[in-house]
Amino acid sequence: MNEFDFIAALRSLPLHPGAQDLRDDAAVIEIGGEALVVTHDAIAEGVHYRAGTDPADIAWKLVAVNLSDLAAKAAEPIGVLIGATLIAGSERFVRGLREVLEAYGVKLLGGDTIAHSGPATFGCTAIGRATVRPVPARTGARAGDALYVTGTIGAAMLGFEAGEGAAYLRPRPRLAEGWALGGHVHAMMDVSDGLLLDARRMAEASGCTAAIELGAVPFAEGVSDRLAAARWGDDYELLFAAPEGAALPIPATRVGAMLQKGREPLLLDGKSPPGRLGYEHR
Amino acid sequence: MNEFDFIAALRSLPLHPGAQDLRDDAAVIEIGGEALVVTHDAIAEGVHYRAGTDPADIAWKLVAVNLSDLAAKAAEPIGVLIGATLIAGSERFVRGLREVLEAYGVKLLGGDTIAHSGPATFGCTAIGRATVRPVPARTGARAGDALYVTGTIGAAMLGFEAGEGAAYLRPRPRLAEGWALGGHVHAMMDVSDGLLLDARRMAEASGCTAAIELGAVPFAEGVSDRLAAARWGDDYELLFAAPEGAALPIPATRVGAMLQKGREPLLLDGKSPPGRLGYEHR
Repeated sequence: MNEFDFIAALRSLPLHPGAQDLRDDAAVIEIGGEALVVTHDAIAEGVHYRAGTDPADIAWKLVAVNLSDLAAKAAEPIGVLIGATLIAGSERFVRGLREVLEAYGVKLLGGDTIAHSGPATFGCTAIGRATVRPVPARTGARAGDALYVTGTIGAAMLGFEAGEGAAYLRPRPRLAEGWALGGHVHAMMDVSDGLLLDARRMAEASGCTAAIELGAVPFAEGVSDRLAAARWGDDYELLFAAPEGAALPIPATRVGAMLQKGREPLLLDGKSPPGRLGYEHR
Repeated sequence: MNEFDFIAALRSLPLHPGAQDLRDDAAVIEIGGEALVVTHDAIAEGVHYRAGTDPADIAWKLVAVNLSDLAAKAAEPIGVLIGATLIAGSERFVRGLREVLEAYGVKLLGGDTIAHSGPATFGCTAIGRATVRPVPARTGARAGDALYVTGTIGAAMLGFEAGEGAAYLRPRPRLAEGWALGGHVHAMMDVSDGLLLDARRMAEASGCTAAIELGAVPFAEGVSDRLAAARWGDDYELLFAAPEGAALPIPATRVGAMLQKGREPLLLDGKSPPGRLGYEHR
C-alpha cells in the first residue's frame, strides 16, 4: 500500500468534520467559540534529511514545517508536542528546538521519546489558534482568482544540492505573512511538496484548474533549472488565491490564475506539464 | 543522553503553562472558556510491540494508550492525529484504527505518513475536552488520601508472556471511569509503566510518600509473581488519590495511602522496594 492508497483508506474511517476529508494541511476544531488548528508532520532520517545532519537542524525543520502548516491557516501557534527518537546528539536536538521555539514564540506542550534501532524518526504536532474566520483552506479558490506566492521558489533545492543551505535545513515558516493574508485570500496553503504539485492540489480541492506561468515565478537567485525548482518542495512559502487585482497587505508575486475546471487540474504555460509535479511518497 | 536527561533538557525550553513542567500525562490548554487536553505518545517496533505483531493490534494500542492519558484527565476525546510508517499490512493497520476509533467514538483529525527503512514507528496525538475543572493531574494528592486502582493489575504481563493476549495488545482505556471519577479525585494518572513506578511519580509530583500494600493490590487471575506484576506496565488502569472513606462513583480497589513526604517517595509494605519499580527507558 503506498501513501496515496493508505490515505484513501484512512478517508473511510470516522473523520472529524474539521479534518476536511484529510485533504488539507491541518484540521480545524471549533471549541468555546474559538477555532483551533492542529497539524502533525513526521520526518525520518534518510527521507527528510540526510544521515549526519546536525540534530539542531533536524529539530528546527521538524517544528518549522508544522508551523508552516499553521501559517497557511493564518493561525497563531499555541504550542507543539514532539515525538523523538533518542539519538546521539540529543543535546543538539534540544538546542535546535530552543532556537525554533524562541524564533517564533512557540511553547513546548509535551511529547514522548522512544529508544529504538534503525533510522531516527520524529513527529511534531502543532496547535494554533485561528486569527480569521473562515479559516483559510485549500478549498475556496474561484475561477478568476489570481494565484500568488510569497518569497522565492528554489532556494531549498539549491541548499540541498549544495549539501548545506539554511534554506533547506532551516525553513522559515511564513507565520506573519499568513496572519496578514488571512482575511484577504480565498484559498491558501504552504509550498511543501513543490509549487506545481501544490498548485494542482489547491485546484483540485477548489474544483478549478490552476494555470501557472513559469516565467512569472519568482525563482531564487542561482536557480538555472526552473522546471526542477518548480517541482521541488521544502521552500515553505505560501501559495494563495485572491481576487484578481485585490490590494494585498504584504508583497507577493502573481504566478498565474485559477480557471474554470478543465480537463487538466494544472496548466503550465497553457499546457499539461510533463512528468512528476513534485514530491510524492510512493 | 538517556530519556531522563533528555526530558530534563526539554524542561529548560520555553514550556507552555499547561505542560505542567512535562511531569504529567497530558497538557492542558485553556481556550474560549474550555480546557483542551492534549497528549502525544509514540511506539516503535521491537520496543513497544514485537516484530510480526498484527498491524491492527499496533493501531489499537497506539490510539488506546493515548486515550488512556485522556481518561486520566477525565477528558472526552475529540480526535486523534496519527503519524505512521508505511508498512506491509497497512490495510490491517487501518482496520485496527477503525476498530479503536469506533469502540470509543473518536474521530480522526489528520496526520502524516512516512516511508522509511528500519523498524516502524508510530505516533499519536490525542485531543480531548476536559469534563471537570480543575483537570485531574498527578499533582494534588494529599497526605491522608487513600490510593485506589480501577480493574486489575498484571493482565498485560500475562498476555505478553503468553505471546498474545488482548490485555497486552488491546488495552481498554478507562474513559468512562475517568469521567466518573473526575470530580472525586485529588490526583489521577494511568498505570502505563508499572503500578509502583507510577505511584512513586504521583507521590513525587504531589510532594507526598505513597504507601502501597502489595496484599491489597487486585492482581489479575493467574498472576503468581505479584512483585513483577506490580512493576509491569501496560495495564492502563487508573490510579487515583481520593479522600479516605469518600464514596466513589465506580468500583475501585484501595491499594494504599498517601503519607506525609518522608525519606522515600514510595513504600511497599512499609519499606523501600528493591530494584526497578517499572518500565523506564535507559
